[in-house]
Amino acid sequence: MKLSDIGEFGLIRRFSPPFLTGLSDRVEGIGDDCAIIETDDTVQLVTTDMLVEEIHFLRDAIGPFDLGRKSLAVNLSDIAAMGGTPTSAYLSLGIPRELEVEWLDRFFEGLHALCDEADVALLGGDTTGSPGPLIVNLAVLGSCRPASLKLRRDARAGDTVCVTGELGDSAAGLRVLLEDLPRDGEAQVLLDRHHRPRAHLAEGAWLGGRAEVRAMLDVSDGIDSDCHRIMEASGCAMRIELERLPVSAELRALARREGWDAQQIAAGGGEDYCLMCTVETGRHEELTRAFEAAFGRPLTAIGRVVEGDDLLYEREGRSLTLDRHGWDHFGSA
Amino acid sequence: MKLSDIGEFGLIRRFSPPFLTGLSDRVEGIGDDCAIIETDDTVQLVTTDMLVEEIHFLRDAIGPFDLGRKSLAVNLSDIAAMGGTPTSAYLSLGIPRELEVEWLDRFFEGLHALCDEADVALLGGDTTGSPGPLIVNLAVLGSCRPASLKLRRDARAGDTVCVTGELGDSAAGLRVLLEDLPRDGEAQVLLDRHHRPRAHLAEGAWLGGRAEVRAMLDVSDGIDSDCHRIMEASGCAMRIELERLPVSAELRALARREGWDAQQIAAGGGEDYCLMCTVETGRHEELTRAFEAAFGRPLTAIGRVVEGDDLLYEREGRSLTLDRHGWDHFGSA
Repeated sequence: MKLSDIGEFGLIRRFSPPFLTGLSDRVEGIGDDCAIIETDDTVQLVTTDMLVEEIHFLRDAIGPFDLGRKSLAVNLSDIAAMGGTPTSAYLSLGIPRELEVEWLDRFFEGLHALCDEADVALLGGDTTGSPGPLIVNLAVLGSCRPASLKLRRDARAGDTVCVTGELGDSAAGLRVLLEDLPRDGEAQVLLDRHHRPRAHLAEGAWLGGRAEVRAMLDVSDGIDSDCHRIMEASGCAMRIELERLPVSAELRALARREGWDAQQIAAGGGEDYCLMCTVETGRHEELTRAFEAAFGRPLTAIGRVVEGDDLLYEREGRSLTLDRHGWDHFGSA
Repeated sequence: MKLSDIGEFGLIRRFSPPFLTGLSDRVEGIGDDCAIIETDDTVQLVTTDMLVEEIHFLRDAIGPFDLGRKSLAVNLSDIAAMGGTPTSAYLSLGIPRELEVEWLDRFFEGLHALCDEADVALLGGDTTGSPGPLIVNLAVLGSCRPASLKLRRDARAGDTVCVTGELGDSAAGLRVLLEDLPRDGEAQVLLDRHHRPRAHLAEGAWLGGRAEVRAMLDVSDGIDSDCHRIMEASGCAMRIELERLPVSAELRALARREGWDAQQIAAGGGEDYCLMCTVETGRHEELTRAFEAAFGRPLTAIGRVVEGDDLLYEREGRSLTLDRHGWDHFGSA
């Protein structure tokens, strides 16, 4: 059997059961943005992400400084998604023979810049050779007050679904890169957003402190995929209103010019690295006002949690589903 | 500048200074077997190791079960080297497209077998594709009583240098593999030792509890290289008596048959994954007796810590150094 037959999530479901049995009830293993280890007065968070050349990045396209920064940012985003604060990082680096040391110098400058900014200490790691791709793995530790911890499994029917940032910019930037579009104006802005994601750490810690926020995760695979993760963990469904998805002016402009469906990119594209959370019925308007007062940016309600199994999008009163070919009217062949 | 111009240790020296400034005095960053984070009553240990196909292993030679097991064992060895106990593990896996899921099943069985044996919980990770080599990264957390923590930097002139196991078997096994020698008798035993290392966890925790043990590390790169790590961290030199290096009957027999220098393999070979420690003057004989009573195996004194800079070996009253070409009489051209 090939891995493509079962996919990444199929593989995780396949191997994880023996590793999930017998865990202490103060520990959460495989299945959320971070692993969780509770002690008496704090919760320890652990996350790890591997970036492999040709799979996750093109070395010449992203450049060393941005790659160093982004390798850490994607992990910080997982800490933010739990309502936590990152503390230390551990880097494993598989280095192709031909790579210049000066390239690595810039990589470490980028990594250090974000360590500094986020007050994270790089405390260890491993460096080794690689017979091919450049390989970057970071493991990050963080901590959280027990009351602030936000899991994927705590969404309930009636909750409002909110996001902390605009959607689809990173996916559009990747498309600019892969389709080799001219990098003028909006295209360059979107490409930069793809290469320079910002982990929503302050937003995550703030939302962690609000009791009306229930489930939370970071939008790494696109909201379509990430809504499914909350739904599976919480045993519920979602209705997303496409007109409400926050789409940047740059993505709107480029989509118009290139004939793209901006809402489809916003729903299906990945690597946004903003946060998605569900908020108790009737409390999201007050939360949204407080969020805007704190951050000067909107917390956008994009839909609601409902009973059921299916993720449906609503556009002009019609229900749609999203698959790899695009929109499909719900229930049609 | 190419990486080969400065080497792995040169690279670490080059990038680490900005990551070592401003750390709390309860934290130890880059430079020992594990990172160390002290809290009021415990010390947290963190280590990570990346194994890359073609660099660290040949997929068909080691087989999936042993690879899963070994990937964890090499990290547990780092926890043992601090005097600690492992608690949880985090796996990142970069998977080539053609790899069979059944192969991965066996990999996870091997990983789980050692998790079970060492009472370590695999709590999280990341799975992704790889455009070429299979990539296995494990990060492992552990803990240690503050009084049991053993660092590389605490060796002092006069200490006795001891090891907890036989040296060179793994390096000899690798040679069996690379030179494609017949796998009869000793050759197969040595190859198995290369593929199935045992982390000396019980020994590490026991030695951690002994105040007369000063510096400790695990022998991962061969004692020649690992003696240098203690020397650099502690600012001292070492004299190693070659006749005292513990060499297995299997290595002796195969070396005799193949015309190898068994002492050179024992000193220069890597991946032994036993522990090396230095013991306060005059106290190693009592420690050795207690160790043998506890484990039924010897703790072998192989030399001593002295003032100076050079690592010298002594054989039949003569001083030698070891380089990539083999033994050199100290001071000769």
